[in-house]
Amino acid sequence: MIQEGKSINECESFRVLAQLAKNPLDLTEHRVLTPERVRQFCCKGECFDLLYACQRVSDEVVDTLQDLADECSLVEQLAAMQQGAVMNCIHNYPSENRQVLHTACRDIFVEKPACESAAKQARVELEKLKKFLGDLEQGRICNAEGQAFDTLIHVGIGGSDLGPRAMYEALRAYTDETRKVFFVSNVDPDDSAQVLAQVDLSRCLVLVVSKSGTTLETLANETVIRSALSAAGLDPDRHCLSVTGESSPMDNPQRYLRSFYMYDYIGGRYSSTSMVGAVTLGFSLGYAQLLEFLQGANTMDRAACEKNIRRNVPLLLAMLGVWNHNCLGMDTVAVLPYSQALHRFPAHLQQCDMESNGKSVDRNGAAVAGKTGPIVWGEPGTNGQHAFYQLLHQGTEKTSVEFIGFRKNQRGKDLSMQGTESQQKLVANLLAQSMALAIGRDDENPNKRFSGNRVNGILMADRLTPSTMGALLALYEAKIVFQGFCWNINSFDQEGVQLGKILATEILEVMSEKKKNVPLADAFLAAVKMC
Amino acid sequence: MIQEGKSINECESFRVLAQLAKNPLDLTEHRVLTPERVRQFCCKGECFDLLYACQRVSDEVVDTLQDLADECSLVEQLAAMQQGAVMNCIHNYPSENRQVLHTACRDIFVEKPACESAAKQARVELEKLKKFLGDLEQGRICNAEGQAFDTLIHVGIGGSDLGPRAMYEALRAYTDETRKVFFVSNVDPDDSAQVLAQVDLSRCLVLVVSKSGTTLETLANETVIRSALSAAGLDPDRHCLSVTGESSPMDNPQRYLRSFYMYDYIGGRYSSTSMVGAVTLGFSLGYAQLLEFLQGANTMDRAACEKNIRRNVPLLLAMLGVWNHNCLGMDTVAVLPYSQALHRFPAHLQQCDMESNGKSVDRNGAAVAGKTGPIVWGEPGTNGQHAFYQLLHQGTEKTSVEFIGFRKNQRGKDLSMQGTESQQKLVANLLAQSMALAIGRDDENPNKRFSGNRVNGILMADRLTPSTMGALLALYEAKIVFQGFCWNINSFDQEGVQLGKILATEILEVMSEKKKNVPLADAFLAAVKMC
Repeated sequence: MIQEGKSINECESFRVLAQLAKNPLDLTEHRVLTPERVRQFCCKGECFDLLYACQRVSDEVVDTLQDLADECSLVEQLAAMQQGAVMNCIHNYPSENRQVLHTACRDIFVEKPACESAAKQARVELEKLKKFLGDLEQGRICNAEGQAFDTLIHVGIGGSDLGPRAMYEALRAYTDETRKVFFVSNVDPDDSAQVLAQVDLSRCLVLVVSKSGTTLETLANETVIRSALSAAGLDPDRHCLSVTGESSPMDNPQRYLRSFYMYDYIGGRYSSTSMVGAVTLGFSLGYAQLLEFLQGANTMDRAACEKNIRRNVPLLLAMLGVWNHNCLGMDTVAVLPYSQALHRFPAHLQQCDMESNGKSVDRNGAAVAGKTGPIVWGEPGTNGQHAFYQLLHQGTEKTSVEFIGFRKNQRGKDLSMQGTESQQKLVANLLAQSMALAIGRDDENPNKRFSGNRVNGILMADRLTPSTMGALLALYEAKIVFQGFCWNINSFDQEGVQLGKILATEILEVMSEKKKNVPLADAFLAAVKMC
Repeated sequence: MIQEGKSINECESFRVLAQLAKNPLDLTEHRVLTPERVRQFCCKGECFDLLYACQRVSDEVVDTLQDLADECSLVEQLAAMQQGAVMNCIHNYPSENRQVLHTACRDIFVEKPACESAAKQARVELEKLKKFLGDLEQGRICNAEGQAFDTLIHVGIGGSDLGPRAMYEALRAYTDETRKVFFVSNVDPDDSAQVLAQVDLSRCLVLVVSKSGTTLETLANETVIRSALSAAGLDPDRHCLSVTGESSPMDNPQRYLRSFYMYDYIGGRYSSTSMVGAVTLGFSLGYAQLLEFLQGANTMDRAACEKNIRRNVPLLLAMLGVWNHNCLGMDTVAVLPYSQALHRFPAHLQQCDMESNGKSVDRNGAAVAGKTGPIVWGEPGTNGQHAFYQLLHQGTEKTSVEFIGFRKNQRGKDLSMQGTESQQKLVANLLAQSMALAIGRDDENPNKRFSGNRVNGILMADRLTPSTMGALLALYEAKIVFQGFCWNINSFDQEGVQLGKILATEILEVMSEKKKNVPLADAFLAAVKMC
């Protein structure tokens, strides 16, 4: 067991922050948000910079956030995690009791990785994948007619779906145009039916992703797709691949062309850089770009181990989040990427953050005293500006905002209109929103007043590439983990999903008439007329 | 000017509710959530039923919500709105001062519509559309080579994008498979580039949607697409259509094959049933199914005029929302459809709700005393169960939940596994989540405890069809409008988007060097290195 830091409520620095929060910086005052401030409150990071002039923080607040990070040993805990400490546990109670080693999946570029055993396993799987992709490329693996597989259907749910889907969408500009990818996740039969209506099954690989090999939705969708393959006169076992735990029911060479492994030290929501994401990304991006993606993530993992908060973007982002949530009372975080390619990234973060930190019990099994993870939501800008930004500017609910922007576009196609290119319009809008939220504006007409002081920060990188995407993913993973350490919770389990599963099983037994006289289930079923 | 009701804070019934909220029903107590309660707290509505047993309400609370609805004259105001009252205004201050008549777009099935003049205009546009679709069908309108247009690119942003996109996605099961639809919205040049990489422009219609005809993003995207058409040797004016205000810059027969009109009494976020949505839906669903969609919405509009809250689903949903937000302190609403086809519906609602009710000034220009619109977010179930539901069950943030479910799937394709079909699994999970959130469960292991009392309701219909989709859309539109009336705010303007536009223009002028020495803009640009 590693030495954990203090939790936030035991920290002297948190008491100081609570005092400072009673009179936070007023960004609407004349000469507060100045050019000097913009330059000073800018953290130059690996790949991403963080502009945080529009947060309600002074130097004193940032210093105290550094103290809090130190008191809670956040960086030390992250390093211990990367080295293989058992971080997924609740002391004195039964728990998963596992290491947390998603970072090892990309710690493959140096001779001495932080955790050698896990990095070695990652390398083995990557080699298997490299060989498999080469076999596809060379035609050694093909369909019964000798044709190349040109489509992959990725079947998974939750962590086995959202991350890979968000990464794939983000990097479509870099994918092989002759290869298509579809995703099936929902147990809703319309989900698989819609995909099956669009593909030529004879050319499809079906990648089934489930760590346990027993996920209900994924098995149901696999059954549907296997049945469609059979109905088309194809042999499902020659089309299906699996990503699963070693020796799970899905680790079965009789039924799968290949099985790639994920290990129990990788949580689903942190698994995008494991085989869970790598197979699909490797298929569409090619192996070389997959490695760039992993290298971007690895570089950020290393950068996150810097102790100085002013030189560590993930740590600074995490601590600003704690300040906004626990001190200033912002209970939601809007993640607003100014890049249409990132349109599913907020949904991935929503899972990664809320499933990790939506907890009420600390790592000792005691009820937490304050607030833990906020609600995370968001959509791309500029689209959101024409939608929910009205509430961000003038609503009674206050939320903190994390903008994400890029200096250049992905595809290099642009056009000038009214003196500027679209990419410039995009960035100008991002900056304008950040300023508008912060400084507000008075007006004689009360309906045109903007109260300002609506806190936000900007993550800025050069261009969204495989490498940048890897860095952005790892940046947020580290942010989430830092916050979990700070709240002293276990960010790596998900007991909150269990009760619903138990009740769903009961209701299904009533539906299939295996079980009778379950009054509440009967009543619900009668109410929806589905008995 | 119509007679407005009282606002919530002037109402005796609201004081009673505030008292009742001090000791709300405890759903976790033994024998509270009973089969009798499930049956009793079920509102049978037009097309959708609302199961609200899992709300923390007693009969007394529901009675008092009825009183509140009556004191605020909610139904009377809705009826006045449908009849053409000037509802989009702030008294004593300059404001848009317009009628609010999105309901007239679908009030075309009876001889005496609520507002004859607007319904007549709606009929004219529908006739134009019917003729246009017929001309496409018959080949009277085709490309320069005489081929049929088989693809439509819908170009719009905000209300001109989110609603039509959500409706199209929801109804893809019913679309003509030979016709494809793409959407371009973001000023991000990668958005248009990605779509242009996928289409055969010679077969494309390009539908440009902007009420003012001056929306920056939409004009930029139109310019990009026209330039691509020209580069492909095609005449843009023979491919482009517009939906716009009569006599806007986009109402120009020289440049557009056809222009369809929307009127200033229809706000963008309420425009899905106007030509903004109708052209794209008509192209993909055909005119007959478009009419079914409109009829579903119209039927709900009429149902929303029922005064008895126990027989009016939109009114009940609205008042439960006020109870949860203003009395129980739930500041976000998660909309969770158990239907993958509705995957973009929460994003549409997010806009419609947050842009309408994210306000701090009432209809008299006074600062509101309490809370107005909550933050709206959500993703489909069962996917969400494997993502953010952890926080819903065990987090420190509390949110109210609106489930949406259907008894049958859309495509009629399903398979039995472990004794039940996928559709049954989908519905069983919905019901299980509703119960689990409400009743919670104790456990010796504190990490496995569920506190319960997490409020939720279920909207349930038979099947997601064009007609049901219309009803669901109108249901939420009415809910949002009822809440706006209750808070006494103007749900139909969006002054909050203006400041960002002004600042973006300033920054763009600095970028294009028309303007110099704007210190803050310079500083931001230097910080992002984009000068």
